[in-house]
Amino acid sequence: MTQRMNRQWLLAARPKGLVKESDFRRHDTAVPEISDGEILVRSTHVSIDPAMRGWMENRGDYMAPLDLGDVMRSFNVGDVVASRNPAYREGDVVTGLFGWQDYCVAGTKACPATKLARPEMRTLYLGGLGVTGFTAYFGLLDLGEPKEGQTVVVSGAAGAVGSVAGQIARIKGCRVVGIAGGAEKCRWVVEDLGFDACIDYKAEDVGKRMTALCPEGINIYFDNVGGEILDHALARLAMHGRVVLCGGISRYNDLDNLTGPKNYFNLIFRRARMEGFIVLDYADRYSEAEQHLARWIETKELTHRETIVEGFDNLPAALIGLFKGQNIGKQIVHIGD
Amino acid sequence: MTQRMNRQWLLAARPKGLVKESDFRRHDTAVPEISDGEILVRSTHVSIDPAMRGWMENRGDYMAPLDLGDVMRSFNVGDVVASRNPAYREGDVVTGLFGWQDYCVAGTKACPATKLARPEMRTLYLGGLGVTGFTAYFGLLDLGEPKEGQTVVVSGAAGAVGSVAGQIARIKGCRVVGIAGGAEKCRWVVEDLGFDACIDYKAEDVGKRMTALCPEGINIYFDNVGGEILDHALARLAMHGRVVLCGGISRYNDLDNLTGPKNYFNLIFRRARMEGFIVLDYADRYSEAEQHLARWIETKELTHRETIVEGFDNLPAALIGLFKGQNIGKQIVHIGD
Repeated sequence: MTQRMNRQWLLAARPKGLVKESDFRRHDTAVPEISDGEILVRSTHVSIDPAMRGWMENRGDYMAPLDLGDVMRSFNVGDVVASRNPAYREGDVVTGLFGWQDYCVAGTKACPATKLARPEMRTLYLGGLGVTGFTAYFGLLDLGEPKEGQTVVVSGAAGAVGSVAGQIARIKGCRVVGIAGGAEKCRWVVEDLGFDACIDYKAEDVGKRMTALCPEGINIYFDNVGGEILDHALARLAMHGRVVLCGGISRYNDLDNLTGPKNYFNLIFRRARMEGFIVLDYADRYSEAEQHLARWIETKELTHRETIVEGFDNLPAALIGLFKGQNIGKQIVHIGD
Repeated sequence: MTQRMNRQWLLAARPKGLVKESDFRRHDTAVPEISDGEILVRSTHVSIDPAMRGWMENRGDYMAPLDLGDVMRSFNVGDVVASRNPAYREGDVVTGLFGWQDYCVAGTKACPATKLARPEMRTLYLGGLGVTGFTAYFGLLDLGEPKEGQTVVVSGAAGAVGSVAGQIARIKGCRVVGIAGGAEKCRWVVEDLGFDACIDYKAEDVGKRMTALCPEGINIYFDNVGGEILDHALARLAMHGRVVLCGGISRYNDLDNLTGPKNYFNLIFRRARMEGFIVLDYADRYSEAEQHLARWIETKELTHRETIVEGFDNLPAALIGLFKGQNIGKQIVHIGD
């Protein structure tokens, strides 16, 4: 039975320090009407991503501003429940930036909706076959330029992007060392994902283990965390190494006391580079990435895992949990059927 | 009249904090004899470079180790005063790593000596036509990839490398903003070198001035200093900006309390890269650089300036002065005729 109110979570405050429940405000409103050219999407699943912390503050200036009182931004998948756009039919399964709400008016230039090629695997489009997977794909391959036999280190290795990036490196014939927090995550990374090793940063001396596991230095460091671990990697770069800057989750919750990588100077001695990217720039190559990722998932070369939280009311808690490392693989919230 | 002792400055201690006179020790010894295949060079001029601080500590691992008791390493120019190598004749003017001493056995694989194409301009081979100029040339052009109309910011703009890098950027049609310490240096950078502007970091708010002078952001930041100025530049990168890491003179004297660039994360938002290099890697393209630099010097598109300190005994003081910013342009010590 279809919910006839539109539940929403609005941005109530810019976060200070850790994201809190009170940064959001529940607001229930009428289901919107659609006009010609529009569709109405009812979301079933919401993607929870580290980048949301930045969206809440409009950091980086790479997306339209998110104002206080706006519906919280998110990538979702959902069903078309009404269409006045000939490109869509009721029952189509679509993905897009539909936000923390049940219903979204979409199918327009302002709010595009992409039909899923494999609607039966809808949550994959928030993970390995979505922006998460594309981030891993373009970051590792385009910026990292892995070559067979090279050593790749991935932080946040049990996270959504890191777990895919490391597996792509493995598929490309690299030695892959992950870094993750806790024995359970490390076990998953090695046993299920096929990384060569995984360093438990909560229990081990990261620098020492990195030295032992990367005797010829690090050719590619794929960074999701920043902080001290980035410094450990910079100190151990191989000649012409590449640092792919994907994220910095250790930074997001204390933006007032930021530090920088004091070992950045090793980029000179190692003739190395550190480079950032935003996956949205690769939109015209998403289909290339999707094809490769889908094939690797089909052949089981790429393992995919989701942590699914139940219930619309738990959206803020799921985001807060992400910054505490509670998820393994892709964090998703299931908000409706 | 030729000095018949070989004066030397040896490395006496690894520097702690600022380089001190007592890090070196005078040692006079006999003029060495040469064997077949060797030449004897008597140096006239010694190049003083920021990299020497790192050589004293063997930082970076990119040159043969320098041990305590070794003659201090330096690039020199000098005259061949004896030759048992058919490739050289007495009277040839040569450049190489002849060190802080009058006489050096060279012309071998262990200590190559390069004959100057324009021996009458010998000191230029320690500056614009030497490793200094090549550093500016490859750093700016190969890593920076300047395009006409782009905005280039150069720190250490009145220094040997920065002054050349900024002028090459100007020659390539870029807007060039320098950063230097003191009104005299800034005046020279703008009036004589033709930079569009120069920020006096000792007297001005660097961030504010950078914002005013680079309204569309910084396409290339050529960094010789590190520290806060690097952070200011990172915060103001244009999309796809490049940070060329050449040096970090602000770091060299306090290696125990290093900080990193806290704004490095802007590399993500700006899809930008930060990259280091060592000019020695470009040895097989030095002649390309020399041709271009020589033509620009001939046509007066490239202005060159030297600060020459007199006397062998003043070698340590000249190096200490470099870290205090006492030089304008290339710092050289004249040790003999």
